[in-house]
Amino acid sequence: MANLDLMRELSVQTDSKIVMLVADGLGGLPGPDGLSELEVARLPNLDQLASESICGVVQHVLPGITPGSGPGHLALFGYDPLVFDIGRGVLEALGVDFEMGPHDLAARGNFCTVGHDGKITDRRAGRIPTDLCAELCDLLRQIKLDGAEVFVEPVEGYRWLFVLRGEGLEEGLTETDPQREGMLPLVVEARRPEAERAARLTNQFVEQATRLLKDRRPANMVLLRGFSKLPQMPSMEEVYKLRAGAVAVYPMYRGLSKLAKMQVFKGGKNVHDEIEVARKIWNDFDFLYIHYKWSDSAGEDGNFAGKVRALEELDDAIPALRSLGPEVLMVTGDHSTPSIMKAHSWHPVPFLLHCSGFYPDDVRAFNERDCRNGALGRFMATDVMPLAMAHAGKLAKFGA
Amino acid sequence: MANLDLMRELSVQTDSKIVMLVADGLGGLPGPDGLSELEVARLPNLDQLASESICGVVQHVLPGITPGSGPGHLALFGYDPLVFDIGRGVLEALGVDFEMGPHDLAARGNFCTVGHDGKITDRRAGRIPTDLCAELCDLLRQIKLDGAEVFVEPVEGYRWLFVLRGEGLEEGLTETDPQREGMLPLVVEARRPEAERAARLTNQFVEQATRLLKDRRPANMVLLRGFSKLPQMPSMEEVYKLRAGAVAVYPMYRGLSKLAKMQVFKGGKNVHDEIEVARKIWNDFDFLYIHYKWSDSAGEDGNFAGKVRALEELDDAIPALRSLGPEVLMVTGDHSTPSIMKAHSWHPVPFLLHCSGFYPDDVRAFNERDCRNGALGRFMATDVMPLAMAHAGKLAKFGA
Repeated sequence: MANLDLMRELSVQTDSKIVMLVADGLGGLPGPDGLSELEVARLPNLDQLASESICGVVQHVLPGITPGSGPGHLALFGYDPLVFDIGRGVLEALGVDFEMGPHDLAARGNFCTVGHDGKITDRRAGRIPTDLCAELCDLLRQIKLDGAEVFVEPVEGYRWLFVLRGEGLEEGLTETDPQREGMLPLVVEARRPEAERAARLTNQFVEQATRLLKDRRPANMVLLRGFSKLPQMPSMEEVYKLRAGAVAVYPMYRGLSKLAKMQVFKGGKNVHDEIEVARKIWNDFDFLYIHYKWSDSAGEDGNFAGKVRALEELDDAIPALRSLGPEVLMVTGDHSTPSIMKAHSWHPVPFLLHCSGFYPDDVRAFNERDCRNGALGRFMATDVMPLAMAHAGKLAKFGA
Repeated sequence: MANLDLMRELSVQTDSKIVMLVADGLGGLPGPDGLSELEVARLPNLDQLASESICGVVQHVLPGITPGSGPGHLALFGYDPLVFDIGRGVLEALGVDFEMGPHDLAARGNFCTVGHDGKITDRRAGRIPTDLCAELCDLLRQIKLDGAEVFVEPVEGYRWLFVLRGEGLEEGLTETDPQREGMLPLVVEARRPEAERAARLTNQFVEQATRLLKDRRPANMVLLRGFSKLPQMPSMEEVYKLRAGAVAVYPMYRGLSKLAKMQVFKGGKNVHDEIEVARKIWNDFDFLYIHYKWSDSAGEDGNFAGKVRALEELDDAIPALRSLGPEVLMVTGDHSTPSIMKAHSWHPVPFLLHCSGFYPDDVRAFNERDCRNGALGRFMATDVMPLAMAHAGKLAKFGA
């Protein structure tokens, strides 16, 4: 909390503007020819920007720790991800644009297959398609509980969202998913007294769901895990005195922004749409977060060339972004997604800070190797916002 | 504890293997010709390994803080040395292979010389030889206490180990050594109520020892300090889900490994013996710590050329170590021991991490100067294990 407390104390409202462009899964690793996706890509605009900026590589959690999208973003917004914990249930809710409130307890649901003995034979119910998932969610919406509302929303494939809404529903539940096949689903238990009501209602839900699904195949049972409420986070306005806005194509990232009480805007279909949205709302905000998804998608698919293309498309959008004229422009990622790993990774992520009032470094290209040798070296993501605030002239002196 | 808690949460058991080779006192400083021991030594194998690795320099406690062997090793194993405190008494016990249990309270004993007035004239009793120390320890073994066992073990020269074993013996004792000559030895006091029984028994021991030794010269009295119990540390198996083994020639380092509940093996006479031991137990462990003592011994003696030779001998053993084929191989030290200082020092210690899945750096030689410019830069020793675990594919993602 030290960072946030300092920011709350020192931040001052000014007219200068900060833009944070987060390219999801930005960092990579060398492919077969020894160069990373960023090194292979032709990035004239980002390279030019880097050469007019100070650069570094960002560590989001700790060395060796691979961040999920939640912790990666919270850290960039200045919230220590080891303090502010986003549960799996909350993340599913954010991902389908479900508006969670303070009385909601969310969990991730899976449809699964159980045998005649009740034991799990397939934790993912043969990976049923999303439209079947939606049909089964409709079925589960018949379930009524005593004194609490239930929401059931399809997510993707066998995955769906479970939300209980009511007074006195607290975190601290065990999960029903034993995480292995050949076992019976588990009964939810309260790990602390405050969670007992939620445990009882959840078990009632599962009983009714069991009856409703019993003649279905392959999805004849549910598993629930990651019971969680919204984390209690101070708003960016309170901490930084910023009018903060978020522009993202995908709901998950708008949802993460809502946790920091940013005002969120749908980003259209691509990064050019996103920048047009940013242009329209430009005068209403001092801080804009813009999310670029496609570098991560290609990396997760193991599509090296695809990630290179995604980075080049991002590069094309840089002049339009610069034309908005923010006092501080940052480009970085929420984690690395090396194509050769087909997954998020722990490797630090390239970062650039374009602003005035800095001692230049020698970075001339925006990639893992060059940024590592930049003025900022390797540094923690929770230091990003203080640096941006300082360079935007929005921080008072600490101490006399 | 953040690191350990995260590791406990994220670590997964896999078949990959991690080797940590700790060259004691590895780091040095430039000698008369401006080069350090590592720079003067011919290290073709380590240099080759470094050029295929990511490198950095490790800080074990904090900048400017010189680590003892205990804190230096604990930090490398991932245990914050500012949290897990190894008392001087415990360290003496580890050093003579004394098997401490949970009811043992250990202290470091000195034989000293007192005058007719009881005041200390020589805190080290003229640095008596170890065989005389052993003879006097035999004498002290006659001492019987009410309701507690006493163990007295010679260590080296005037130094010996004192252990009280019994129920209700707690830490929190003042020391009898006033740390200055010309003073009377002090009576032990309990700084908290739980330590009163131990204080009383210790004072009884000192009284009896005084009578037994009074006609001896020069060692006619005892001094006791560093009263301590075993630190409560979670095992490496619990934290990292690793079957962890330690190979060391010297008992101190096997003892430090036992604190982390590693299974320990005697290392024979030299590093070649140690690697043969590692080869024999290879299939039974996922993590092996191998200790190399001789770089420190020469540094402590101020023997620059001797330390250079010790490093070259270590280098000779690298091919045998590599032939074991660990997925992750690390080489570093527990602290620096510059020959020109004849002592441990606070200077960060060269580190290399050989693995797959990294962005290469430009380090081509294993020494203080080159490693400082490696991909890892200067980093904390408690980050070593998370990095090793990540590169060994043994860590799940943090957050969704």
